Amino acid sequence: MACKNSEIKIFAGSSGKVFADKVCKYLDIDLGKSYSMTFSEGNTFVKVEETVRDKDVYIIQPVGLSPNDDFMELLFWLDAFKRASANSITLVMPFFSYAKADKKDEPRVSIRARVCADAIEVTGVDRVITMDLHSPQIQGFFKVPVDHLLARPVLCNYIKESKINNFVIAAPDAGFAKDARKYSLDLGVSTVIGAKERKANDEKAEILEIIGDVKGKNVIIVDDFTTSCGTLADMAKGLKNMGAQDIYACVSHGLLQEKGLRVLEKSHIKELIISDSIYNQFTLNHHKVTTISVAPLFAEAIRRIHNRESISTLF
Amino acid sequence: MACKNSEIKIFAGSSGKVFADKVCKYLDIDLGKSYSMTFSEGNTFVKVEETVRDKDVYIIQPVGLSPNDDFMELLFWLDAFKRASANSITLVMPFFSYAKADKKDEPRVSIRARVCADAIEVTGVDRVITMDLHSPQIQGFFKVPVDHLLARPVLCNYIKESKINNFVIAAPDAGFAKDARKYSLDLGVSTVIGAKERKANDEKAEILEIIGDVKGKNVIIVDDFTTSCGTLADMAKGLKNMGAQDIYACVSHGLLQEKGLRVLEKSHIKELIISDSIYNQFTLNHHKVTTISVAPLFAEAIRRIHNRESISTLF
Amino acid sequence: MACKNSEIKIFAGSSGKVFADKVCKYLDIDLGKSYSMTFSEGNTFVKVEETVRDKDVYIIQPVGLSPNDDFMELLFWLDAFKRASANSITLVMPFFSYAKADKKDEPRVSIRARVCADAIEVTGVDRVITMDLHSPQIQGFFKVPVDHLLARPVLCNYIKESKINNFVIAAPDAGFAKDARKYSLDLGVSTVIGAKERKANDEKAEILEIIGDVKGKNVIIVDDFTTSCGTLADMAKGLKNMGAQDIYACVSHGLLQEKGLRVLEKSHIKELIISDSIYNQFTLNHHKVTTISVAPLFAEAIRRIHNRESISTLF
Amino acid sequence: MACKNSEIKIFAGSSGKVFADKVCKYLDIDLGKSYSMTFSEGNTFVKVEETVRDKDVYIIQPVGLSPNDDFMELLFWLDAFKRASANSITLVMPFFSYAKADKKDEPRVSIRARVCADAIEVTGVDRVITMDLHSPQIQGFFKVPVDHLLARPVLCNYIKESKINNFVIAAPDAGFAKDARKYSLDLGVSTVIGAKERKANDEKAEILEIIGDVKGKNVIIVDDFTTSCGTLADMAKGLKNMGAQDIYACVSHGLLQEKGLRVLEKSHIKELIISDSIYNQFTLNHHKVTTISVAPLFAEAIRRIHNRESISTLF
Amino acid sequence: MACKNSEIKIFAGSSGKVFADKVCKYLDIDLGKSYSMTFSEGNTFVKVEETVRDKDVYIIQPVGLSPNDDFMELLFWLDAFKRASANSITLVMPFFSYAKADKKDEPRVSIRARVCADAIEVTGVDRVITMDLHSPQIQGFFKVPVDHLLARPVLCNYIKESKINNFVIAAPDAGFAKDARKYSLDLGVSTVIGAKERKANDEKAEILEIIGDVKGKNVIIVDDFTTSCGTLADMAKGLKNMGAQDIYACVSHGLLQEKGLRVLEKSHIKELIISDSIYNQFTLNHHKVTTISVAPLFAEAIRRIHNRESISTLF
Amino acid sequence: MACKNSEIKIFAGSSGKVFADKVCKYLDIDLGKSYSMTFSEGNTFVKVEETVRDKDVYIIQPVGLSPNDDFMELLFWLDAFKRASANSITLVMPFFSYAKADKKDEPRVSIRARVCADAIEVTGVDRVITMDLHSPQIQGFFKVPVDHLLARPVLCNYIKESKINNFVIAAPDAGFAKDARKYSLDLGVSTVIGAKERKANDEKAEILEIIGDVKGKNVIIVDDFTTSCGTLADMAKGLKNMGAQDIYACVSHGLLQEKGLRVLEKSHIKELIISDSIYNQFTLNHHKVTTISVAPLFAEAIRRIHNRESISTLF
Repeated sequence: MACKNSEIKIFAGSSGKVFADKVCKYLDIDLGKSYSMTFSEGNTFVKVEETVRDKDVYIIQPVGLSPNDDFMELLFWLDAFKRASANSITLVMPFFSYAKADKKDEPRVSIRARVCADAIEVTGVDRVITMDLHSPQIQGFFKVPVDHLLARPVLCNYIKESKINNFVIAAPDAGFAKDARKYSLDLGVSTVIGAKERKANDEKAEILEIIGDVKGKNVIIVDDFTTSCGTLADMAKGLKNMGAQDIYACVSHGLLQEKGLRVLEKSHIKELIISDSIYNQFTLNHHKVTTISVAPLFAEAIRRIHNRESISTLF
Repeated sequence: MACKNSEIKIFAGSSGKVFADKVCKYLDIDLGKSYSMTFSEGNTFVKVEETVRDKDVYIIQPVGLSPNDDFMELLFWLDAFKRASANSITLVMPFFSYAKADKKDEPRVSIRARVCADAIEVTGVDRVITMDLHSPQIQGFFKVPVDHLLARPVLCNYIKESKINNFVIAAPDAGFAKDARKYSLDLGVSTVIGAKERKANDEKAEILEIIGDVKGKNVIIVDDFTTSCGTLADMAKGLKNMGAQDIYACVSHGLLQEKGLRVLEKSHIKELIISDSIYNQFTLNHHKVTTISVAPLFAEAIRRIHNRESISTLF
Repeated sequence: MACKNSEIKIFAGSSGKVFADKVCKYLDIDLGKSYSMTFSEGNTFVKVEETVRDKDVYIIQPVGLSPNDDFMELLFWLDAFKRASANSITLVMPFFSYAKADKKDEPRVSIRARVCADAIEVTGVDRVITMDLHSPQIQGFFKVPVDHLLARPVLCNYIKESKINNFVIAAPDAGFAKDARKYSLDLGVSTVIGAKERKANDEKAEILEIIGDVKGKNVIIVDDFTTSCGTLADMAKGLKNMGAQDIYACVSHGLLQEKGLRVLEKSHIKELIISDSIYNQFTLNHHKVTTISVAPLFAEAIRRIHNRESISTLF
Repeated sequence: MACKNSEIKIFAGSSGKVFADKVCKYLDIDLGKSYSMTFSEGNTFVKVEETVRDKDVYIIQPVGLSPNDDFMELLFWLDAFKRASANSITLVMPFFSYAKADKKDEPRVSIRARVCADAIEVTGVDRVITMDLHSPQIQGFFKVPVDHLLARPVLCNYIKESKINNFVIAAPDAGFAKDARKYSLDLGVSTVIGAKERKANDEKAEILEIIGDVKGKNVIIVDDFTTSCGTLADMAKGLKNMGAQDIYACVSHGLLQEKGLRVLEKSHIKELIISDSIYNQFTLNHHKVTTISVAPLFAEAIRRIHNRESISTLF
Repeated sequence: MACKNSEIKIFAGSSGKVFADKVCKYLDIDLGKSYSMTFSEGNTFVKVEETVRDKDVYIIQPVGLSPNDDFMELLFWLDAFKRASANSITLVMPFFSYAKADKKDEPRVSIRARVCADAIEVTGVDRVITMDLHSPQIQGFFKVPVDHLLARPVLCNYIKESKINNFVIAAPDAGFAKDARKYSLDLGVSTVIGAKERKANDEKAEILEIIGDVKGKNVIIVDDFTTSCGTLADMAKGLKNMGAQDIYACVSHGLLQEKGLRVLEKSHIKELIISDSIYNQFTLNHHKVTTISVAPLFAEAIRRIHNRESISTLF
Repeated sequence: MACKNSEIKIFAGSSGKVFADKVCKYLDIDLGKSYSMTFSEGNTFVKVEETVRDKDVYIIQPVGLSPNDDFMELLFWLDAFKRASANSITLVMPFFSYAKADKKDEPRVSIRARVCADAIEVTGVDRVITMDLHSPQIQGFFKVPVDHLLARPVLCNYIKESKINNFVIAAPDAGFAKDARKYSLDLGVSTVIGAKERKANDEKAEILEIIGDVKGKNVIIVDDFTTSCGTLADMAKGLKNMGAQDIYACVSHGLLQEKGLRVLEKSHIKELIISDSIYNQFTLNHHKVTTISVAPLFAEAIRRIHNRESISTLF
């Protein structure tokens, strides 16, 4: 570890460029010079273009909509910084797509989040900063310290300042019930829970019932991520059937692409609130989607880590 | 790995003697000879008393009511078998007390389940068989294969054959909502959820509300373990207030000692159903407690592993 | 390690299906049942669909034209087999795209082949079978045994049986001079060497001179792989300028896609001979490309490994 | 490693509180804030209650009279500090109970000291400071640097300043003969050796003979630890039979509890001199026991380490 | 691990050829074919010259009079067998020269025995068989099982059958007192101890006194190894001065070369009894040296290991 | 990592003393105090004789003409510095003899360079500085950063300033063709290549042909090392036969001893230019050998590393 006055150096992988620019702007520093490309045979290549000897390096690379390309590039960045003799390497991964593959819920499958954690650690990393992992246990997949930031305070702030009122929080399924309770407690409202049953791996899920009362109330459905918007749309429909008024959705990681946005478009959801944990050109200008930046949250975490302050007040 | 006709050898650590006897009886084999003791200065000592060279060893040692003593002894068994040149070592741990310490939910605490997993793996183990970990992600704390058995089928069987009817399943909090749903689906009934808020580490929790309807119904509260019986008793009281009829509780791991049993005694709970994952002399003869053995489940798993059959049908 | 009569089990990852079918046909066994897919958010999922407990598993997955997807899937297969308690796992990787990234020839880049080797080993593998790595030193990137097969005997066999005569072998650059010498010695002809200088990472290279004499002779240019066909076409042009007759090319791994084939089409190369180390639908039916199968070579290696015979006679 | 002016932070585990207070008093610094407890089901919980980001942490936790509880707590402290991003973690373990389990002197037992060393290292530690390990080889069980302090200079100092004269040093058995020689050389007196034979694990030992002459002399029996006081009492009796005058005993680690003190009471030993390496409420006020503090020795070692001075003059 | 009827394969490194021939003769099997050489620039080269795929390999290589050459060759053998896909590799190392470097008895030195143990384990070994390590704790330097054979029973047998009578056992210093006691107990005689002080690293030691009585008795000095014969000769002189009759010496590992033998020649020692743990051409025909073979002991250990019998009765 | 103003400390192992003196003179600092010796039984002993606590240590130890002794000593230095609590340890190894053993080019041999790399890393090192490894891929055998310096610029400088003119560069075989091209490009001349075939391990090689034209030209044969001078002498003879004028040779590492120098003496080589990467008393005063020091190159690299400057301009 370097002295307090050692230089901070933030670099962006190809999936983190926009996010890194926001972070650097917040911290009022220049982004480190680096370069990545894909060779015509498909191999990813990375190069650090300034000396990092004995520097404290932060590499920003969410594992997002091209998770395999993003992840392999991330490993190569870690190795490049290590072999370039950086003092410490912090991986800043606002979204970690494979986090949802965190258990062996069928026979003879892989615990892919652990595979990724091991590959990251064997390549060489000193710390990981991430946000809203699919389950908090994933911190325990890593031996190195993991700073696990939460989008909830930032998103709740937006909700409090919005004109949404007379609402309850809805978890789309029992698996998110615990987190939905935290939204409820932060916002001082009650909770309802969708009791769906997910069948096999075909991503089709079926809402069975709504536990709790929504009649005449607005509802904000909360979840950690959405890809197809299917669960949210089904839940919204179920809530409408139960007599709910306006339906909103608020998820940390918004992975919708064209198909998912068409589902959103047709759904009962009035507004979908997401963070900018991944750069998603599909959601950026969609009239139903509001994107709240968590870059200041990450920038503040980096600043405190570099100044040896506690970051526990951030989560 | 040995050939199919290699000899199976089951050993019992000091916390697994009763359980191991049941397993050996099911498999119709003799328990391996071994010996453990505590020196007067407190050190634990273990000794394997028959040759295990090239044998497939199963050591049964739940980490139960004396978790630190049980855990250290477990490490010493693993080392003793490894240095005695066993062909493979399978740790059979029907209960793993530290599994509930699976995340960093406060700043500057330890992820104790990962600490334990690493200590087990560095000492040397080939496979772990356990049951109803506090969260399924803990499988991912291990690099070696973990066979994660479930008490639910065994416990549901008991419920189906009992005279309990017209009931709903209740999760005592949102964190167990997902598992409670599985009980509901297995038993074909609906679910209600307690929305409590746990404050600090003082083990006192407070039921805030019940999500779902219980009026005029019997209720079976389900959970993975209970120590103080406090959460169950509070939930039972809340359910009664909501108009529920008879209240039952069904938990995988029953850790109640004298104090917990006094709480159970005074509570609205009519019957508490637990497994024998730990040997608990306090609950054994309590009139409100029914203990269902999961030893046949573990014995069957061991038999199939040894015969190279799939055990996925067991969970 | 299992006994000699333990069952052999060959599985195919998504990039190895065609190759695996050929191998199984050679060995007269059925391909193992497995399943892989890509979720809509981009995550790769794998599932083994039959028990592999205590089996000797061979998973065939070249890292080919989608190297990042192929590689991540490969890691997940290894983890799935390990957690499913396979007795041993052999990775059969006829082509390993990142092998060419085997050194730090610029400051602050990654040695990507070592990153991949570490990720493979930390996930868990017992042996690797591969072919014509960019440099033989890459065997040393792995701690586990690597069986390094050679396409040269198979390709030389084709050349010997073809009607090509009065020819010399040409290395396109000094880096392949040593391997070209081996072709020369196998075929009993002499060698010429292209002395080009590769500038930066833009894949454009420039032939400077031809060392050796080609006047009036047919020439077979040999190399380990070709993507853009640029080096081969430039070399062919240089050879023509030096007075060579017909020009052939023979490379182990043929990675040409549409663009590369257009270069081949226009070049002085009369025939390009490649192996089927990757499944390449672009080259399959091209009139200038001849594909020689190395599946029998791999099948024979697997057979001998399983029967505990020496495979050193294969390379 | 931090700069020389980085802040030193000393924390106490539950077995090291009294010792840590003395160390902090010597160094004139405040003890770090932390908290540990035992849950009602027996699990140990630890929490660091101030930021340690980039600090050099010293955690004082002897593994003493409750070795399993002490050891597990120690692992959790290490993990908590590591995940809280301490710059370095030094484990200060004045006594390490399992050190005496340092070899495989029977078939099929565990080398428990190595098991503990591995668990400590895999959890994460940068350095260990300890005192009078059962054998010096145990330093080699650790990969991290071990500073091995000696109580002998401190204890010899007490003896020199006492009124004991005309004495010889006695080793209670051949195993401690080498260390007893060092006492003899420090104090300028000669040595006698008890030639006992220990039989099995029942802690009963039998003095066979005394090698050397003690007639008319006072004797100080030296050893590294005593639990039951049995060896010392037997040796004292043997010495008396050989014509010795007053008998004293001097051991580094005094583990006597009620039973051991009764043996001491009845024995020929006039005074037992021990260090305060463990907090032992049983020996604290016993009229035959003199406790000499080694806290200043440890404090001085910590001070020198922190100031990057050599500590080799301390041993 | 292979099946019971898998083939045993014994190989000899360059320092173990004579010993291996004796072992193979005892077991009535052929020595494996292998080849080692030293290149003119000093590099050691090894090659296994028959297939070992899936075989249980025992490689016999004491680390003897050229410890660095012997040790490096040993590492290369391990790697060669591992990369040749042996089923298991057992290192048979009758003498391990660096074992005596087992502690950090001066500031800023290396614990060389642990360095060697780590290098052996990282290269890849499944088990180690050795004899009379300088301290039994060195077993704990290894994670893999170490079978620690003892020369004492073999040597005592020789003594019992010899005409030596009316003798006592002498330890040359307090450090060997414990082992000398075991000789005494085996032979039913008493013990005396030399109280020398070793000063610095110059290998010169000084006998200070003899603890115990030797007047009119024959004496057998015992030790684990001798290089210069200096300690033995000094002890012999001291014993003579104390009135001893004939002096014998019995050490497990005889490392004497020309210089040491000259010391022996001139000393009061009548006969030096050693084992053949290293091949020592200097001692082979010396009139004062008797060499007792421990090859049958190692052969029997290998036989039992291969037949999955207990070998604990051997030590 | 220490702060910029932490003290630099350079130490010399027994094979690096002369080189280290030159480096220290360049940097104007004193060599660290240390001591190494060989015990009479052959064991190597090392001791650091000044405190290195928290210092940045550079240990200079080429693995040269006694590679096994040099390498073992190197491991012990690393361990001694680590256990003495150095802040960081950089191994400066101007020559690494086992680097040439970098692949498995025969069945059942060891990849000895990887064995050495693993032993170095497991003992503990933070960085390696070396020069002209036999292949650049060997950097990838290490996980720690390797700074790979090149002798070529230094040697080319000498050639440019010499009176050698009208020359071409010759690679003695195809394996060095790529590096020879770099010499050609640096010096602006063309290349010829010896097409020899090496048979077995007997170090005898046979030049088959020279690819390229040398008539009437002076020739500088380049290679990475020479031991027997055989390849160079054969190449020189072949070149003479082809009509070459004066023949020079330029190799990075000059390992010639008496026998090699006799071959040089008789050969057509007029001057052999080598670096001082190893201390070679045989070549030092030979009239045909010119030794160019690379100590300033290493000193400059160390200076830049310590000042956190980029060293990429050095290669």
